[in-house]
Amino acid sequence: MDEVGIGIVGYGMMGRAHAYGYTLAPRVRELAVAPRLRAISGRDADAVARAAGRYGVDEWTTDWRALVARPDVDIVDVCTPPGTHAEIVEAAAAAGKAVLCEKPLAADYASAQRAAESAQAAGVPNAIGFNYRKLPAPALLAQMVAEGAIGDVLLWRAVWLSDEFLDAQIPFDWRFDRRLGASTIADLGAHLIDLALWIVGEIDEVAAQSETFTRRRSGRAVDVDEASACLVRFAGGARGTFELARVCARRPCDFFVEVNGTRGTLRFEYPRLNELWFGEAGDDGRLYGMRRIRAEHPAHPYAADWWPIGQGVGYGTSFVNQAADLLERWPDGPWEPDLAQGARVQAVCEAMERAAADRRWVRVAEVTA
Amino acid sequence: MDEVGIGIVGYGMMGRAHAYGYTLAPRVRELAVAPRLRAISGRDADAVARAAGRYGVDEWTTDWRALVARPDVDIVDVCTPPGTHAEIVEAAAAAGKAVLCEKPLAADYASAQRAAESAQAAGVPNAIGFNYRKLPAPALLAQMVAEGAIGDVLLWRAVWLSDEFLDAQIPFDWRFDRRLGASTIADLGAHLIDLALWIVGEIDEVAAQSETFTRRRSGRAVDVDEASACLVRFAGGARGTFELARVCARRPCDFFVEVNGTRGTLRFEYPRLNELWFGEAGDDGRLYGMRRIRAEHPAHPYAADWWPIGQGVGYGTSFVNQAADLLERWPDGPWEPDLAQGARVQAVCEAMERAAADRRWVRVAEVTA
Amino acid sequence: MDEVGIGIVGYGMMGRAHAYGYTLAPRVRELAVAPRLRAISGRDADAVARAAGRYGVDEWTTDWRALVARPDVDIVDVCTPPGTHAEIVEAAAAAGKAVLCEKPLAADYASAQRAAESAQAAGVPNAIGFNYRKLPAPALLAQMVAEGAIGDVLLWRAVWLSDEFLDAQIPFDWRFDRRLGASTIADLGAHLIDLALWIVGEIDEVAAQSETFTRRRSGRAVDVDEASACLVRFAGGARGTFELARVCARRPCDFFVEVNGTRGTLRFEYPRLNELWFGEAGDDGRLYGMRRIRAEHPAHPYAADWWPIGQGVGYGTSFVNQAADLLERWPDGPWEPDLAQGARVQAVCEAMERAAADRRWVRVAEVTA
Amino acid sequence: MDEVGIGIVGYGMMGRAHAYGYTLAPRVRELAVAPRLRAISGRDADAVARAAGRYGVDEWTTDWRALVARPDVDIVDVCTPPGTHAEIVEAAAAAGKAVLCEKPLAADYASAQRAAESAQAAGVPNAIGFNYRKLPAPALLAQMVAEGAIGDVLLWRAVWLSDEFLDAQIPFDWRFDRRLGASTIADLGAHLIDLALWIVGEIDEVAAQSETFTRRRSGRAVDVDEASACLVRFAGGARGTFELARVCARRPCDFFVEVNGTRGTLRFEYPRLNELWFGEAGDDGRLYGMRRIRAEHPAHPYAADWWPIGQGVGYGTSFVNQAADLLERWPDGPWEPDLAQGARVQAVCEAMERAAADRRWVRVAEVTA
Repeated sequence: MDEVGIGIVGYGMMGRAHAYGYTLAPRVRELAVAPRLRAISGRDADAVARAAGRYGVDEWTTDWRALVARPDVDIVDVCTPPGTHAEIVEAAAAAGKAVLCEKPLAADYASAQRAAESAQAAGVPNAIGFNYRKLPAPALLAQMVAEGAIGDVLLWRAVWLSDEFLDAQIPFDWRFDRRLGASTIADLGAHLIDLALWIVGEIDEVAAQSETFTRRRSGRAVDVDEASACLVRFAGGARGTFELARVCARRPCDFFVEVNGTRGTLRFEYPRLNELWFGEAGDDGRLYGMRRIRAEHPAHPYAADWWPIGQGVGYGTSFVNQAADLLERWPDGPWEPDLAQGARVQAVCEAMERAAADRRWVRVAEVTA
Repeated sequence: MDEVGIGIVGYGMMGRAHAYGYTLAPRVRELAVAPRLRAISGRDADAVARAAGRYGVDEWTTDWRALVARPDVDIVDVCTPPGTHAEIVEAAAAAGKAVLCEKPLAADYASAQRAAESAQAAGVPNAIGFNYRKLPAPALLAQMVAEGAIGDVLLWRAVWLSDEFLDAQIPFDWRFDRRLGASTIADLGAHLIDLALWIVGEIDEVAAQSETFTRRRSGRAVDVDEASACLVRFAGGARGTFELARVCARRPCDFFVEVNGTRGTLRFEYPRLNELWFGEAGDDGRLYGMRRIRAEHPAHPYAADWWPIGQGVGYGTSFVNQAADLLERWPDGPWEPDLAQGARVQAVCEAMERAAADRRWVRVAEVTA
Repeated sequence: MDEVGIGIVGYGMMGRAHAYGYTLAPRVRELAVAPRLRAISGRDADAVARAAGRYGVDEWTTDWRALVARPDVDIVDVCTPPGTHAEIVEAAAAAGKAVLCEKPLAADYASAQRAAESAQAAGVPNAIGFNYRKLPAPALLAQMVAEGAIGDVLLWRAVWLSDEFLDAQIPFDWRFDRRLGASTIADLGAHLIDLALWIVGEIDEVAAQSETFTRRRSGRAVDVDEASACLVRFAGGARGTFELARVCARRPCDFFVEVNGTRGTLRFEYPRLNELWFGEAGDDGRLYGMRRIRAEHPAHPYAADWWPIGQGVGYGTSFVNQAADLLERWPDGPWEPDLAQGARVQAVCEAMERAAADRRWVRVAEVTA
Repeated sequence: MDEVGIGIVGYGMMGRAHAYGYTLAPRVRELAVAPRLRAISGRDADAVARAAGRYGVDEWTTDWRALVARPDVDIVDVCTPPGTHAEIVEAAAAAGKAVLCEKPLAADYASAQRAAESAQAAGVPNAIGFNYRKLPAPALLAQMVAEGAIGDVLLWRAVWLSDEFLDAQIPFDWRFDRRLGASTIADLGAHLIDLALWIVGEIDEVAAQSETFTRRRSGRAVDVDEASACLVRFAGGARGTFELARVCARRPCDFFVEVNGTRGTLRFEYPRLNELWFGEAGDDGRLYGMRRIRAEHPAHPYAADWWPIGQGVGYGTSFVNQAADLLERWPDGPWEPDLAQGARVQAVCEAMERAAADRRWVRVAEVTA
């Protein structure tokens, strides 16, 4: 079987998760090509060497440009901090490599747009790592909305709560530097905005507020929002809300998405990711309530690749399904979601950031203009 | 035992709930006075007569001014549509009667403020019907925040979802007439804003959006928002969000309140109203997670008046506890929350309404000025 | 309106709950007669006097026989410890009074049967206090099974967990004396056995085990089981299990009932008593899972008497509905469930007790023979 | 790095899950040896060939004895139907191979015991596939009980509900043949009995009932129980219950384990496998209730190998952790749980089977004697 060479830029948690995805993809999906982890790069030689061994990658380097240049690397997989994504994507595209880039595509819209355009100009398959789409329950939610199960969408709400920034004693690192780590709107919000655009459609305008409660860490100013909330109007007329917060005690990574339509409601709660809640307005009144769909039935997206119903999958599954989706369409693509979607999401993020900064409603078109 | 005469203006669901409250109050709390339901009023003679019998009220009338004038009525309890509250409150206060008024205090701030001032000027005990405060779990939440269980409050979020307006075929009635039924921000939001002011403190400014999806019913224009969402900044620095929506399929009356502080998280979910979720940031990591407090322990507010732990109370309990709290402080008061609180809440509502209409941040002080 | 005189024997928690039920019944149900709490009895004069005032009862006495003899008492409501029930029921029936007796009907089958027969012989309306039947969700469960919603019943499981006996330092009181307080199988199990007989049908035979972990309290031997578990075969072929335990930390009064049939599953969890879970075997596979029915819809049993959907009722509601059901059929009856059902339940309890003591399968017919 | 050769006997779902485990083990745990999937066997050449490709196994064969004989196979991993396990285990042990055998170890105790003894006699590392032990939450539960978090264990309850046999039209296959597929007590119950022995200790005696509702399929008699329930007495004095049922509509694979001790309660619900519920009897009364521990904290068993807290793992994780535990102790062992534990569990299963058949309490010692 033909091998597809993968080069991973960045050896942190995301690099590990992506390597995991490629390793398992052929075990859950029948594929025509075999992924081969050729190289991984990072700045700390010891750490990247250890990671190569641990993640099952053939070779390592401290020079990402060398990795990109390798003839045996077909796909460049970008897992570095957000602010560095665009440059790497552009280099990879210029080298004619397919690209998978972790989210958010960049720390600002202009960079994101340039990155997306570079891939499009190069004509290479390209994808953005909105991995939560690749779980059965959110994918089923999207499918059901598309099929009309809840009628026309009226309301969208999405909340992401974590406690990662709660402790004021956490020392400064790149996550607190917006240029490198991106805003919380972009870092956490990108996933939820992607789901919203995918499921509901384009967002026209936004209002927002942002707050940073711990403004200095290790003597340095923090310019990343710790908590933001946004109001949105979708182009189709639906209304929505987003909240992103990293200062919520005992909320490890709790995100929730709910869509209310003219005929029903769908709700996904990430802490119980094998479930999808569905309520139908037209149901028999005696059955009034919502169903807890066990989103593991063979008829559900991705589920047949995995285990019998009732067993449950976890976070890692999203990366395996993501890798399988890409490899299944190798080498022609197109991949989905692509970097252009990454840029569209970034435009909404930037509109939200401006809305919070300027204390006014901001049209997304104002950002993309 | 001395009797306190009650006169209820309005015989709808709220009139029934308040009558229920007075009937049971002496059965759950040892009181020095006995409530006596002297009279109830309403415009439809047949209906109000039936209600009097059903609710256990001695007499009925179609003239609320006659009810207010009765010498044997000590407390006027206002359960009519929001837009009519202020006039009745003012008349009752002028007649030297104590007043309990259902929420929201009015359909606009000016009326609310006049009503609150009239009661204050008359020196009569006065209260606003924020009954959810009177349930054990929300009261415990407020108590724990006040005691510092979660440290300084950083974030507040409150959502109220119902499906009462979802069906576009529901004919026009007073709930769709803002002058009479008040906005959804005021009608549903008032409860949540009251909780926010009580638990977190004053709100400084707000942004908001509102939408009405079904703009005409029975050929008449609907000027009430079906769904609104708001961003707020508290005077103390915390940030918050509110969402109020009446078009959410299979969401009968689902409201949720969560507060995140520097040391912990508290969350109340009304559909499971005998529970309170509590997470402590400083907990042993091996116990990481939130507790599902069974808010029925004798040590919890109101709980000792009711049943052994594990049995559970319901909605009706809130009205009984409310009535018991008022009767316990008869005749001197003060009652809590009072009409001034009703007016404070109304100011926030009006700021939200303006913010939605004008598409800008609005300071609450701009309303109250 | 005609008054029905009630006399309550016993002023403890159950006396309070029953008084509460009569007080509210006319407020939630349109009744042709008015309940009047004429008298309450108890051995401690001070305590019963206080209770009379608190519960809204006209008069009190320390002599239950005097209460039974009062011409103005039409219904004798027995709320004393289990071991004393039968004698009071028999005296009341002999006096021609209608009887409502708390569960279990007795501490042994022979007494229960005598009590039931005395009422039948006297031809008086009679009822046993299986109040949980009177909540919307369990009543809906029974209704749905009867209508065939889950097909033929295959399996039944019922578990009741509390922590009331966990602390080995709790001093001896009548609950630890089986002759007076009845076994845990009878005291907690009676409710669940009643539901089983009502919903599934007769029980043919049983096996069981019982344990008492703290065998002495205050220097006295405890002969009441703290934890029991039972296997049963229903006459119709279904199989079932019961577990009753009072030594489960942080389980205040958590009971659960699940029925699996050829076409579906129904599950009730008392800690969330406004919900009923329903799964249909024949459902669309893409909706695989169970519905969380909000058992408060006007179409549900009892629900229309109460509040709008989403508000929730509590434990007290069961006593109000129970009282309303009795008063609605005054004076002719029949009442449901009646004392004969109380005796049938007691027979199953006694079969379980024997099965545990003798370590063998016991036919219920062996007890009733 | 040294390679350890794995040979998998059986290519069905379990073969796939085990292959998955070996593939990922080196990606989550730092190991001194590298697993290599050398061979897989099965009777259907086409199917096993396809499986080899899909599972990432080097070679395949239709002759399991040939697989066992391969010098490059160090570990024989037995994933065939239960009734065939013992023979394969014995052959592997005789060949000096380490053995991992899926549960249950056999369809009867005598075979299980012979298999366990063969491995012990051969002195080879040996393990039984009780994979649920290898998930963070159940492992944490065991750890907490061992540490005394709930004091002395009083009660154990374990329930396993599935719907796999509900449909009477499912044609006969080996699962309905007890000699081959083992009883439901053994097939599902083995996991729960293993947890009980591990967490609570030895079981002394049992009572049970079993039922088969669909007694013929495809014209053949079914001798496998579809639903069984058991009462047990532990050697240490605790009491317990087990229920295993395969005819529960919309219960895909829902198992639950709860332990109540003198100082607390622990509960695990497999459908939400990243959570563990913990209640402490000695807690502050105002916090009365149970904690929902997010069993993904780095301090929890296995959790640090996986993802950041809040992300969640699934069923597959158990096989990865199982493989990592074995490889970590290669080549010396001992492995845990071992085949002797498999035989101990089988003894309890057989005691339960006899108790159901003979309708009497059966001592486990009667089986092992």
